[in-house]
Amino acid sequence: MKKHNFYAGPSILPEFTKEKTAEAILNFAGTGLSVMEVSHRSKEFVAVITQAMDLVKELLQVPDGYSVLFLQGGASLQFLMAPYNLLETKAAYLNTGSWASKAIKEARFLGEVVEVASSKDKNFSYIPKNYQVPADVDYFHYTSNNTIYGTEILVDPVSPVPLVSDMSSDIFSRPIDVSKYALIYAGAQKNLGPSAATLVIVKNDLLGKVSRPIPTMLDYRVHIENDSMFNTPGTVPVFGCLQTLIWLKEQGGVEAIEKINKAKAELLYAEIERNKMFASTIPDPADRSRMNVIFVMAPEYAELEKAFNDFATSRGMIGLKGHRSVGGFRASLYNAMPIESVQALVDVMKEFEKNN
Amino acid sequence: MKKHNFYAGPSILPEFTKEKTAEAILNFAGTGLSVMEVSHRSKEFVAVITQAMDLVKELLQVPDGYSVLFLQGGASLQFLMAPYNLLETKAAYLNTGSWASKAIKEARFLGEVVEVASSKDKNFSYIPKNYQVPADVDYFHYTSNNTIYGTEILVDPVSPVPLVSDMSSDIFSRPIDVSKYALIYAGAQKNLGPSAATLVIVKNDLLGKVSRPIPTMLDYRVHIENDSMFNTPGTVPVFGCLQTLIWLKEQGGVEAIEKINKAKAELLYAEIERNKMFASTIPDPADRSRMNVIFVMAPEYAELEKAFNDFATSRGMIGLKGHRSVGGFRASLYNAMPIESVQALVDVMKEFEKNN
Repeated sequence: MKKHNFYAGPSILPEFTKEKTAEAILNFAGTGLSVMEVSHRSKEFVAVITQAMDLVKELLQVPDGYSVLFLQGGASLQFLMAPYNLLETKAAYLNTGSWASKAIKEARFLGEVVEVASSKDKNFSYIPKNYQVPADVDYFHYTSNNTIYGTEILVDPVSPVPLVSDMSSDIFSRPIDVSKYALIYAGAQKNLGPSAATLVIVKNDLLGKVSRPIPTMLDYRVHIENDSMFNTPGTVPVFGCLQTLIWLKEQGGVEAIEKINKAKAELLYAEIERNKMFASTIPDPADRSRMNVIFVMAPEYAELEKAFNDFATSRGMIGLKGHRSVGGFRASLYNAMPIESVQALVDVMKEFEKNN
Repeated sequence: MKKHNFYAGPSILPEFTKEKTAEAILNFAGTGLSVMEVSHRSKEFVAVITQAMDLVKELLQVPDGYSVLFLQGGASLQFLMAPYNLLETKAAYLNTGSWASKAIKEARFLGEVVEVASSKDKNFSYIPKNYQVPADVDYFHYTSNNTIYGTEILVDPVSPVPLVSDMSSDIFSRPIDVSKYALIYAGAQKNLGPSAATLVIVKNDLLGKVSRPIPTMLDYRVHIENDSMFNTPGTVPVFGCLQTLIWLKEQGGVEAIEKINKAKAELLYAEIERNKMFASTIPDPADRSRMNVIFVMAPEYAELEKAFNDFATSRGMIGLKGHRSVGGFRASLYNAMPIESVQALVDVMKEFEKNN
């Protein structure tokens, strides 16, 4: 039976990424050795990480004056590194969910945080609007896509100060204007590659302005000076990221993938609206994530939640169970998810409606 | 032609690890999905990381009261995490090379460091002896194997305070008495698995004693409470580590592998002593590393360095070129290196002697 991988992360990757990585695990770049067992300073691996950085710049049209890094530790370590490097006195944060809250917590170790708005009052089921970012802060941080709650900020926030964004779960799903940002970071394990790679895009001339000493591994300048090789990078994770970047370019890049992502999300949200057994948890359609589509049983069918999960599982749907903070279901539709899998889920929802 | 992988790290891994990982990249635990694209919270991956932790405990006979963690960021991040969690006022460090120096640098961000001894005066070509570890320090840190300089501390140092050790390049190469340690850490990419996994073994009741607040990702207690799943672990790196641990157990564990490691190192050091064209950089045989065997051309043959490197390369030897801090050659003989490859290198050295 065909499996449809709706995991929220680590999550579906292109067949291309899987095939090329499996090959390289056995014989990397014709060396006769595994990509797991060659020096990160070998010319073969240096070519991999260099090409990956170059493709990030090309696909996201990263302007001059920015550095692209592959680090470790995921967004969770970036929650700390971002303020360590950029927060001198005060920073503004938008609180749209668990990950944003965690980012705020770490920033408070290093300075004052102005929480400009929060949607916690309604279990993070909407994106706050009409907030004001103060002009006297060092940066404004937001989470572009909220994997757990299924909301997404598709339009860059208006801000008098440079933006910092955790784009872990929607980077490469659409074009972004990098020039508005001081810093963008993303764990690889959604749209990019295996876990244990973290992508960082940082504006060079905003670094070195804080007065605190920065521990070596937390200092972006150290990683920039060493081309992401200050310490040993995750050679397999970075190799996997490169394959996905090559695949994405072959798909036509972020503009082309955005069209497909829109179509996939529209297909599923339309079924959630139409099908009387299901409901969205996000009232405003403009706030709904294209990457993580959250839905619950409509109140009158609440007792069928487990039955639907079992039925969907029996039809090859994997990873649909919602996060415990929201319940219900979460269908993650990252770049590598083909529209056929979304259609298969819609068909299962229709069939379940008919059967019940 | 058969390749012999002498890279210092990332470095040779067992065929078993490569085959099993390549399989799991395509179809993991019968899920039909790649190990790169399943949730770290799936029952299949939880089984992997749990089994890996259990095997670490079994193979190193980790006593009760210690936690085993798989983190990210390599030893370089541990240089910071160790003092963040354990250094209240003062710690003692032994300086035996570049990595030890880096560990000292990070510890100085957080407190006073007593450098009890250093071998920097002779380019780290020996292990200092007859030093005294003060009794009023929080811990004593040393690097058990110095990958760059080819020295190794095979006998646990005498210390009135708990030991902390960076065992990145010799962990699992021989038995250790974990009960003497507050903390042991190791980047995976030598004897354990792919880079981007970091093994930590920490004594629980020594944590929580420092007065400083600890950022979340740097706090061992957070990772212990979350079974190494506070953030997304490197699923492929941890999977690779598990395969090597399974392989090591099948070899008979650390006692059995130590015998082979001794034999491999003795074979190569004996040839370096015998062959008039080569010389060791480590005067005292007791200080010589079993993991990284450093040798240079004897002074009267210095001009043949490139010729030997080319000759060895033509015979399938990979990664022999020494680190720029020492020059010459470095043959890394980690656990997965078969004695046949060491013999092949010895044969090449003999043949080169005959030809010249």
